[in-house]
Amino acid sequence: MPTSKENMYGDHISHQFNDDLSSLKNDFLKMGGLVEQQTTDAVNALIDGDGHAADEIRARDKVVDRMEMDLDEEATRLIARRQPAARDLRFVISVIKMVADLERVGDEAKKIAKFALTLAEEGQAPRGYVEVRHIANHVTAMLHDALDAFSRLDAEQALRIMKEDKRVDEEYQAAARTLLTFMMEDTRNISRCMAVMWVLRALERVGDHACNIAENVIYMVEGEDVRHTPVEEAEKVVGR
Amino acid sequence: MPTSKENMYGDHISHQFNDDLSSLKNDFLKMGGLVEQQTTDAVNALIDGDGHAADEIRARDKVVDRMEMDLDEEATRLIARRQPAARDLRFVISVIKMVADLERVGDEAKKIAKFALTLAEEGQAPRGYVEVRHIANHVTAMLHDALDAFSRLDAEQALRIMKEDKRVDEEYQAAARTLLTFMMEDTRNISRCMAVMWVLRALERVGDHACNIAENVIYMVEGEDVRHTPVEEAEKVVGR
Repeated sequence: MPTSKENMYGDHISHQFNDDLSSLKNDFLKMGGLVEQQTTDAVNALIDGDGHAADEIRARDKVVDRMEMDLDEEATRLIARRQPAARDLRFVISVIKMVADLERVGDEAKKIAKFALTLAEEGQAPRGYVEVRHIANHVTAMLHDALDAFSRLDAEQALRIMKEDKRVDEEYQAAARTLLTFMMEDTRNISRCMAVMWVLRALERVGDHACNIAENVIYMVEGEDVRHTPVEEAEKVVGR
Repeated sequence: MPTSKENMYGDHISHQFNDDLSSLKNDFLKMGGLVEQQTTDAVNALIDGDGHAADEIRARDKVVDRMEMDLDEEATRLIARRQPAARDLRFVISVIKMVADLERVGDEAKKIAKFALTLAEEGQAPRGYVEVRHIANHVTAMLHDALDAFSRLDAEQALRIMKEDKRVDEEYQAAARTLLTFMMEDTRNISRCMAVMWVLRALERVGDHACNIAENVIYMVEGEDVRHTPVEEAEKVVGR
């Protein structure tokens, strides 16, 4: 496997150690794939007004929860047995932190599904679907790219995701303002517009979690914590 | 120190190891005290319409962020140097996870301060302050008790906090419905009522984080992950 930057577990004496790290990574990516799917499905259920699909998504959140607990246990056991150091330890600790992010993405998907169900029953909201679709596309792409950056330990890609997060925040603010206007125009819109507002908020949070994952990737690769660092500073860390 | 349930680091051969664990614990509690204060201050700034106080809270969030990074580094270094096992490892891993919760509580306080600033400028919201005060008292008490349960490794107290979380959710739902009614009565209320709505949401999240900390305390003490367990099941784990 090419360079130490691209792979952190190619050179251990113990094959078992390599296998453990590699299976932790794969299990994490599996969980990532599931919550990505859950988010996309929840948004589709909302836009299609499909209450049945929404129900299924909510039920499937139990699988996400199970994966979180299993991954945490797997990571803790790996530390206890293999006593990883340096990069490997950073890798395992980061996985533990990112697992919490994935679980929360799962929760946001479940929330969106809940509002999809409400709107399927009460009737569609008068507006806001274009904004939901737009932000959903943006944040699910970010999440996908963050998982990909993790998979390839690609700090440059992670940095690009950090930059996207600001744009999502702006899109969210603009969409929230638009919805507020609809609510003021006609009080009959308020309840259903509020549902869409919470969905937008949930999506914005998905973007935040994708960004957290990206920051962890940079930490794993570069050994520097860029969580509360302005993007320009993070750029210097990655560009070194 | 009394029994192994009450203290997990009284019997190490290495004094240095004990000191490391104990300083990790103290630093965590210090961060906990700060975010608890930030939450209380933010709610007071909101209710008093004190924009200056709100500004200070927002600035102080940088200290919270710094503490998060320092604690993560301290915990990672402890694992690398001391290679803790069993209960000690659970303790350190739990601290890493709970630190993320504390940082998010800090973020929620910062959000509340932001809305305090908006309302200080735009004029108070017409209603909702009673609800804010009520839920704020509830969740800051939960957070305080969760930190206390951690400090004393008290699983019974942690269990009580898990039970409170459901009540907070109900209070939040009721308050949100009340606000929605105000919004429908007069569209001039919408914008400021929305600000209060976001504050209520932020407080509800603080309750969730207190609950996460409580679940981690049970994991540390009992060695069982009760995060996605109904309270009745968690009760059996603690009561054994």
